[in-house]
Amino acid sequence: MFEQLGLIGCGLMGGSFALALKKAGLVKRVVGYSKSPSTTEKARLMGVIDVEAPSALLAVSGADIVLVAVPVTASEATFKSIKHMVTPQMLIMDVGSTKRDVIDAGRRALREHIGSFVPAHPIAGKEVSGVENADPDLYEGRQVILTPIERTQTAQLQKAVDVWTRLGCRVQQMSPEQHDAAFAAVSHLPHLLAFALVDDIAARPNAEQLFGFAASGFRDFTRIAGSHPEMWRDISLANKTALLSELNAYQAELARMHDLLEHEDGQGLQALFERASIARNNWGESRKQK
Amino acid sequence: MFEQLGLIGCGLMGGSFALALKKAGLVKRVVGYSKSPSTTEKARLMGVIDVEAPSALLAVSGADIVLVAVPVTASEATFKSIKHMVTPQMLIMDVGSTKRDVIDAGRRALREHIGSFVPAHPIAGKEVSGVENADPDLYEGRQVILTPIERTQTAQLQKAVDVWTRLGCRVQQMSPEQHDAAFAAVSHLPHLLAFALVDDIAARPNAEQLFGFAASGFRDFTRIAGSHPEMWRDISLANKTALLSELNAYQAELARMHDLLEHEDGQGLQALFERASIARNNWGESRKQK
Repeated sequence: MFEQLGLIGCGLMGGSFALALKKAGLVKRVVGYSKSPSTTEKARLMGVIDVEAPSALLAVSGADIVLVAVPVTASEATFKSIKHMVTPQMLIMDVGSTKRDVIDAGRRALREHIGSFVPAHPIAGKEVSGVENADPDLYEGRQVILTPIERTQTAQLQKAVDVWTRLGCRVQQMSPEQHDAAFAAVSHLPHLLAFALVDDIAARPNAEQLFGFAASGFRDFTRIAGSHPEMWRDISLANKTALLSELNAYQAELARMHDLLEHEDGQGLQALFERASIARNNWGESRKQK
Repeated sequence: MFEQLGLIGCGLMGGSFALALKKAGLVKRVVGYSKSPSTTEKARLMGVIDVEAPSALLAVSGADIVLVAVPVTASEATFKSIKHMVTPQMLIMDVGSTKRDVIDAGRRALREHIGSFVPAHPIAGKEVSGVENADPDLYEGRQVILTPIERTQTAQLQKAVDVWTRLGCRVQQMSPEQHDAAFAAVSHLPHLLAFALVDDIAARPNAEQLFGFAASGFRDFTRIAGSHPEMWRDISLANKTALLSELNAYQAELARMHDLLEHEDGQGLQALFERASIARNNWGESRKQK
């Protein structure tokens, strides 16, 4: 299907994409570039990429498909560094957790080439990062959200749909705004809430005793508080508007809960807990059936 | 060690305690009572109890150890119904997640017999409830917090320490106030926060779409939102004071986070996320080593 993948960022997400394309027989050659030369070398030694490129620009040279798998804050610099090699036939995608900011970066840096860029967010990941954890099956069975804009070329959009579908993904399209609002609610806000709880407890004089009593409920609730601090700083800032709106809604919900508890409104508390419990268990069941 | 266990409440916690005592050879006979006769019968057919008692009072008659394993809000009625059979030699324990309210109920109902009561909170459980899930190993390796008061008889306290230790538990003692404050922080508040998030999302017109995007981070964060609504209503009300204080502290933490995000203070956000991430990962490591 493709002659050459130009991979910029040979980490978990990028490396897994290269391995998945190879496994599916969708690419002949992978040329990779990472900011750290030792990562690029490791990727080659592992067979994730075939050729090490000395720059992002040279990774893109001759490619018919390009994956930009770098931290969202590095998107603009990356787009700038490759723009002179971008061709109208090239399919360029990213894998960022936020879309409006990456698209804005793309508009500024790629300019007339923006139509080759199909913004993508595969909902996949691991708790560990790095090319050493790259996995050809990381994307299999997962959802991929594509957020095309008016200038996105339909041919490139169709290629993007096809390639993710061939990797076993369920592909959906929506606007960047819808995407960012939805992920602020179901991903970004929960991360902030978990960070806040652990930080609140860790700052106390009896933190060690408190952590000593924490059991499996706490373990699961706070698992995402072990996530990468810089990455979540970047996601939070990149999705600031939607995230602040979610945070406001949640703070209002907590204020309502505070009132119910303060006034010992058992019926109100139970009704709230019941709505949540039913919704959560229904969701859990629907996931199992997939 | 004991002749007869009087078990009031033949559910997961009570049934598991009976099975554990039997497995350890610590009791000769278990007489059980549950509010629902079909539960009591099921417990007997499963071999969790040996004899079905027609009332809580008769379950206690002749027992030298009594476990009250009922919802915390049913504690006072249970204590009242058994008080005429309580003897100074009897060891009475509960398994409630909150301690001050159960102790207050004990003081009111047991009166001069309060010294036989050793308030206990074994930190164990399952996502499923009911005698059919009773498990002789439920308590093994778990922490048990005992919260004696001034009037608790030292002999009964020692018996309580011994029996839980023999079941493989790590026994700790602290004041009921310390207990309730600690568990408000590491257990009760996280439950409220998870309920709040799911309720907030479930109430929206696009709830189904949002749940459709939710991934493993959301799954773990909200697992405890699938918990039993009535039970958590009761725990919340029983531990109202400590829980409101925790909720206030958390709301203040969220307000600080809101400010950091609103002012795009990347350094401040990263510092907060880092403190949380380090604390969470250290805690996770320390648990693995146990």
